[in-house]
Amino acid sequence: MPGEFELIARYFTRASRTAALGVGDDCALIRQPDGLALAVTTDMLVESVHFFPEVDPESLGHKTLAVNLSDLAAMGAEPRWATLALSLPSIDDDWLAAFSRGLFALADQEGVELIGGDTTRGPLTLCMTLLGLSPPGLALRRDGACPGDDLWVSGATGEAALAVAHRRGTLALAPADLAVCARRLDWPQPRIALGKALRGVASSAIDISDGLVQDLGHICERSRVAAELHWASLPQTLAVRAAGDAGRAALLGGGDDYELLFAAAPDQRERIERIGLACNMPLARIGRIVPAADVIETGRVRLLDPDGATIDIASGGFDHFE
Amino acid sequence: MPGEFELIARYFTRASRTAALGVGDDCALIRQPDGLALAVTTDMLVESVHFFPEVDPESLGHKTLAVNLSDLAAMGAEPRWATLALSLPSIDDDWLAAFSRGLFALADQEGVELIGGDTTRGPLTLCMTLLGLSPPGLALRRDGACPGDDLWVSGATGEAALAVAHRRGTLALAPADLAVCARRLDWPQPRIALGKALRGVASSAIDISDGLVQDLGHICERSRVAAELHWASLPQTLAVRAAGDAGRAALLGGGDDYELLFAAAPDQRERIERIGLACNMPLARIGRIVPAADVIETGRVRLLDPDGATIDIASGGFDHFE
Repeated sequence: MPGEFELIARYFTRASRTAALGVGDDCALIRQPDGLALAVTTDMLVESVHFFPEVDPESLGHKTLAVNLSDLAAMGAEPRWATLALSLPSIDDDWLAAFSRGLFALADQEGVELIGGDTTRGPLTLCMTLLGLSPPGLALRRDGACPGDDLWVSGATGEAALAVAHRRGTLALAPADLAVCARRLDWPQPRIALGKALRGVASSAIDISDGLVQDLGHICERSRVAAELHWASLPQTLAVRAAGDAGRAALLGGGDDYELLFAAAPDQRERIERIGLACNMPLARIGRIVPAADVIETGRVRLLDPDGATIDIASGGFDHFE
Repeated sequence: MPGEFELIARYFTRASRTAALGVGDDCALIRQPDGLALAVTTDMLVESVHFFPEVDPESLGHKTLAVNLSDLAAMGAEPRWATLALSLPSIDDDWLAAFSRGLFALADQEGVELIGGDTTRGPLTLCMTLLGLSPPGLALRRDGACPGDDLWVSGATGEAALAVAHRRGTLALAPADLAVCARRLDWPQPRIALGKALRGVASSAIDISDGLVQDLGHICERSRVAAELHWASLPQTLAVRAAGDAGRAALLGGGDDYELLFAAAPDQRERIERIGLACNMPLARIGRIVPAADVIETGRVRLLDPDGATIDIASGGFDHFE
């Protein structure tokens, strides 16, 4: 069985392109271009919590980076450098080869360099920290939404949660729907280009990892506002429609979507539509920001039917501790 | 049981001092002073691998930061910002309060700000990424050692490994020795001030986490040199002496020491002695760097007795996968 150091060398060491010093020393050294802010995010993925034990390791490598990229996308930052810590129950060469293949394919696509990490024995756990660059003052923060702003979402939500339900055996998707939903769950596509295009356009943004309603709640809380979601405007894919009530719950609260939810002033509508076309990304206007005083007592987010009546939101999103 | 977000707020959110944006958004935003390089390191600590299940959570909070600080010390970098991802089997308020107390006490002492993180359910695992600043060209890298350089070590090695052996029941330390060794294991003191003082003085440095001989091997490999260690010059504490053969093995290969091992040209001796006095840190000259051609066939590090004869090195250090 190869040692820790050989393992690092075999699967995770590449020549540095932009780092002054990459994998192999006590620290990596990077030079941030003068005048830019550094955006920093970290995510930990744990077996049986964030992914199934039988997950395809190539997709897991992809997803480990993708969920962090999604956080940078939600700030409008440009990804640059990553560190990866992994805890592995054993050394499985095939597994590691596939994992690093999935990781580096996405890293190459998005211009991310792996500059350091740590490997250890233990329950299968991945922890990545991702660094990106952001022009000062243009980061898409959660706390900038204003009453009157439109609410937008990229793509559509709910499919990843349906794939989880199918694999857990609580829902049976038709084969074609399962293929679509599984791809959403296993190979999420972070909206980096969209996030960068929304700099100076969106007043606030977040990526949807815990569920549309819950993540909208985070924007509201940080911005000290409330929000109305218009049910008829929410994008519903064929798989979500076909799943009925389960689909509706997944759309609102499923999580693992990695779409961008953002607020923007109404005078930005035309510009946002052009951005959607340029990024080849459907963008739907799904509601609006209202003053916090308008919030109903049970939460900051109100879901409205086409007649303006409130729909009860049963699912509050995915919280790892509830 | 409180949710993930309440948990973050309660134990890990503080007002930002130096970060443009701290805990609570998709990413943290920091501004690195122009002209400095950013040093980045990450370490993952797993229950039953890096610490015992019954560990004092306050010391674990300290140690989670300390092991990362030690990597920055070994680069001569100044610590600044940290992210923390934790996986927890359950929410235990007392445990979290103690853990965060230990973490923040050391963070305050060393000027580190916690700017972000992630919490999830799962086996107890801590993953910290630490960012620091380094003047360009002055980082203490592993690859700068030259034949003829002296080898130095701060403090003394071996005691932490003796505490591990005692707790595993493979060794019985006297109560006084156990107290000393347990303190070394549970409350390591990263050599930040020493690392910074060695900028421009040491040709190469590493922190000793895997064992003196193994970490010296890393310097040798990266610098394409070999090394002689002089047994009679190696600092031996009372507890290590009292442990006999086990003490000798721990001194050479125990690991978890978090002392600095560094190389420097002989004309730096006086300066290094002054640095040791200024940092209130014993520094011992323990050997020298030799050309790689002088290496014995079995490794890059040769241990010599006072007559210059080679002593067999039984223990090669602690490798998490061997």
